[in-house]
Amino acid sequence: MELNSETRSFGGRQQVWTHQSKETGTEMTFSLYLPPAAEDGPVPVVLYLSGLTCTHANVTDKGGFQRVCAELGLAFLAPDTSPRGLDLPGEHDSYDFGSGAGFYVDATQEPWAKHYRMESYVTGELLKVAGEAAPCLDLEDIAITGHSMGGHGALTLGLKRPDLFKAISAFAPISSPIHCPWGQKALGGYLGDDLTAWRRYDACALIEDGARCEAGILVDQGLSDQFLSEQLKPELLEEACRKAGQPLTLHRQDGYDHSYFFIATFMEDHLRWLGERL
Amino acid sequence: MELNSETRSFGGRQQVWTHQSKETGTEMTFSLYLPPAAEDGPVPVVLYLSGLTCTHANVTDKGGFQRVCAELGLAFLAPDTSPRGLDLPGEHDSYDFGSGAGFYVDATQEPWAKHYRMESYVTGELLKVAGEAAPCLDLEDIAITGHSMGGHGALTLGLKRPDLFKAISAFAPISSPIHCPWGQKALGGYLGDDLTAWRRYDACALIEDGARCEAGILVDQGLSDQFLSEQLKPELLEEACRKAGQPLTLHRQDGYDHSYFFIATFMEDHLRWLGERL
Repeated sequence: MELNSETRSFGGRQQVWTHQSKETGTEMTFSLYLPPAAEDGPVPVVLYLSGLTCTHANVTDKGGFQRVCAELGLAFLAPDTSPRGLDLPGEHDSYDFGSGAGFYVDATQEPWAKHYRMESYVTGELLKVAGEAAPCLDLEDIAITGHSMGGHGALTLGLKRPDLFKAISAFAPISSPIHCPWGQKALGGYLGDDLTAWRRYDACALIEDGARCEAGILVDQGLSDQFLSEQLKPELLEEACRKAGQPLTLHRQDGYDHSYFFIATFMEDHLRWLGERL
Repeated sequence: MELNSETRSFGGRQQVWTHQSKETGTEMTFSLYLPPAAEDGPVPVVLYLSGLTCTHANVTDKGGFQRVCAELGLAFLAPDTSPRGLDLPGEHDSYDFGSGAGFYVDATQEPWAKHYRMESYVTGELLKVAGEAAPCLDLEDIAITGHSMGGHGALTLGLKRPDLFKAISAFAPISSPIHCPWGQKALGGYLGDDLTAWRRYDACALIEDGARCEAGILVDQGLSDQFLSEQLKPELLEEACRKAGQPLTLHRQDGYDHSYFFIATFMEDHLRWLGERL
């Protein structure tokens, strides 16, 4: 495990770590912000999962979370979106599958199954390694959030692992990968054509099948988002939550698109909401 | 003039514009943030000059100014650091001279003199074009700030043009290019060996020679900045201001480096300070 960089930010420490991952069999990089309160004792953790094409760096540079995390005493952990440094057949051919597009699943299909184990990585090894890097992290007190593909990751991993994650939020998430082109391509490629397997990586299906987040779910969605109607479909999540009695707060934001300007605008709301539940 | 993009951010509009510049003879790109208050009438402008290797995009993505500008009703204008699309001999050979390193001077030496006219561009054409792009800008009410090379630009252009700029601040500025390697290389290359010409692009020399900013100058400088002692030398600015009676508030910030994490941390302080003087 190697500390690549540590930069002072809003009185805390913005770190970037690299380690050799057992789950992915590759080197993995994550960023970790430690608020000033981390100097004095354990701090809760917000785990942020990024969207298609991103690495740990996008939200670290553009998300604007450091100010609010410093104020609230929250650590902010941002992993990469896929294994790196491989050269599997077709891995780099498209922006929405393979490198940069791990979809936070454990792949079962070849040639992906050995390395594309992002669910196990994020919910297991990453948290363990981050805790070793920063013993001040309170790993009993974690919330999960994310953007787009990472919003899908936050919803699905959060719903599947209420033992790990106390609260869930998402920015413009893929609400139901079963019902959109991005999701169909990814789940088909990583999991094959077994629709039972797909349902374990679909927030709406998980809720239909009984998964719950007691603290509720917060979602913000821009109404000028170019991916809204074809890929994101918040109405499906709304309907699944309504039918199941799963508390959901869905803010539709007029004029906002899919960019980090949207994320940065509503980051403070999400961190305060998650922080109240930690 | 072309609007490349417009993105909702903190209730306002983050725009990027491209236009054909008469000063540089090239296409130039700038970003412009319009706060929500711009919908209702004229708004003051903060002009931000970026550092070596940057374009308009760095501060736009990483500076975190939008939230505070939205709150205070300030527009934020960020030009590029040099002409683009040329291929002058040696222009792309080093990070600290030529492309990305215009130093906000009007070059007198060949092959730079025809295109590298960043002082005239920033203080003239840019403001005019931005005002045409956004008639809500109050061009009688402008403050200037910047980072590193752009801090040098803010100090020198602000001191030379009190008719244009009501207040000056800088993040980790090159305090005296005459007295550091970056500055000597740039001023020598763009202006030749006439030291009288150099003094018109050196904040300390300008203050020695009588230039003043009545509203005072605010500077923040990280003490873990890797360029502090060799290139930035805030003590020279401090000494020049002390001797001349020029009001200066210089904050030395423990642990901060030269990065955008430093800028973002203190952006709010600078915008509030500048805003109070507009």
